[in-house]
Amino acid sequence: MRVRLDLGYDGTAFAGWARQPGQRTVQGVLEAALGRVLRLPQPPRVTCAGRTDAGVHARGQVAHADVPAGAWRDAEAHVVRSLRGLLPPDVRVLGCRPAPAGFDARFSGLWRRYAYRVSDAPGGVDPLQRHEVLHHRRPLDVDAMDEAAQALVGLHDFAAFCRARPDGTTIRDLQRLSWERTADGLVVGTVVADAFCHSMVRAVVGCLLAVGDGRQPLDWPARLLAAERRDPAVAVAAAKGLTLEEVGYPPDAGLAARAAQTRGIRCR
Amino acid sequence: MRVRLDLGYDGTAFAGWARQPGQRTVQGVLEAALGRVLRLPQPPRVTCAGRTDAGVHARGQVAHADVPAGAWRDAEAHVVRSLRGLLPPDVRVLGCRPAPAGFDARFSGLWRRYAYRVSDAPGGVDPLQRHEVLHHRRPLDVDAMDEAAQALVGLHDFAAFCRARPDGTTIRDLQRLSWERTADGLVVGTVVADAFCHSMVRAVVGCLLAVGDGRQPLDWPARLLAAERRDPAVAVAAAKGLTLEEVGYPPDAGLAARAAQTRGIRCR
Repeated sequence: MRVRLDLGYDGTAFAGWARQPGQRTVQGVLEAALGRVLRLPQPPRVTCAGRTDAGVHARGQVAHADVPAGAWRDAEAHVVRSLRGLLPPDVRVLGCRPAPAGFDARFSGLWRRYAYRVSDAPGGVDPLQRHEVLHHRRPLDVDAMDEAAQALVGLHDFAAFCRARPDGTTIRDLQRLSWERTADGLVVGTVVADAFCHSMVRAVVGCLLAVGDGRQPLDWPARLLAAERRDPAVAVAAAKGLTLEEVGYPPDAGLAARAAQTRGIRCR
Repeated sequence: MRVRLDLGYDGTAFAGWARQPGQRTVQGVLEAALGRVLRLPQPPRVTCAGRTDAGVHARGQVAHADVPAGAWRDAEAHVVRSLRGLLPPDVRVLGCRPAPAGFDARFSGLWRRYAYRVSDAPGGVDPLQRHEVLHHRRPLDVDAMDEAAQALVGLHDFAAFCRARPDGTTIRDLQRLSWERTADGLVVGTVVADAFCHSMVRAVVGCLLAVGDGRQPLDWPARLLAAERRDPAVAVAAAKGLTLEEVGYPPDAGLAARAAQTRGIRCR
């Protein structure tokens, strides 16, 4: 049987999502805890919707794991409470329950929503948010960032913002890219796409920060996109400002079809 | 001349506000940085509006320091930027400027607003907020907490919620005490008073958590208040959930009069 997990984490002390020998990773910590709670002979393999890099956070990460049917004995609340007891405080499982038929955390996903948080306050970042907010030394023109961003929205080849990979496409459907200043002065970017190439969000953010602080003109993102190859002038923004906020799925009846449609057209 | 400072801090790694030999305190760290930025021969003494305990946070702490007039050479933004360079990331100075006549961070204050944040989610606290949110293992009835709290609002002797002190009154004007559940499921208490006795907010919160999870009846806070002496059944809630959010002052013309009025009627 397959279980769906909903989770969040503070990425600061993790070498990213993906399990790596000798590294503290979210996948590694989660698989070990799930194996113990379900009393499996060895940790199950967990697959997530968005493989976050080292230092990137999540509030709405979704994952699945295939476990023997007999291993699922308890109510969801009991499993979640047991996981809380085993997981470190920088990972939290919000939900863990049998997945509907056809569900695949990665391939059934319709969209991923990320937030990127920046403070350009001269005094620095609110200490209570310092693990998830980047400090930017120059003042940011949020309207300019939002305007320049619109050129990137839509179905495009994002090769300019992706690490080149021989095995996949860099065409993505960027459904939303907006910037606003919140009531408490933070500059927050919202990025939604069907999926993202490796480091794509942070490259897009780095590009728009350069527009926001006046180092680059408003039409720079559009020109980079049109060039369709990675430009070394684009600085990838730091991981700490980035949080995976939500993953969208179709209604249950559409999960299997969406997974079948997605498989094979992704670079990662 | 007197300068006013506006600041915030993550209280986790501090032994509270007040300077103590051999301890890392907000006052100690701030005085040292201010002395260096203003190039004073020794650190100035800084007085704050709300002397927070070990582990308590602040977003809107206000303080003042008296410095030689010649020491104030630069624009505020320059001083704030210099302080950012010297302060650790768990303290941030948002503003530092010459104070208006009659200003006293402590005695001119009209009110202090604190927030207390609790999560009763079975999975635990959002990892990105774990330093400022308390986890409560039992589900909380927020409406019951809010209703029970209203009995405490007003001008009362809060001896039941204060550590006894021979040298001062425990009469306080509790202007607001409300509880709500936020969109993301947190239980947040807002507490506003002219001033607070030592550990008063956390004792009030501890009392209301016992009402919220059903261990005590709705009228318990009112009965405790009426008894006018500390009851050992009230557990002081953990420091980590508490944040000083804002301090209110009168218009500049009223600062000196308010300070004169306040002096001598406070227990701390």
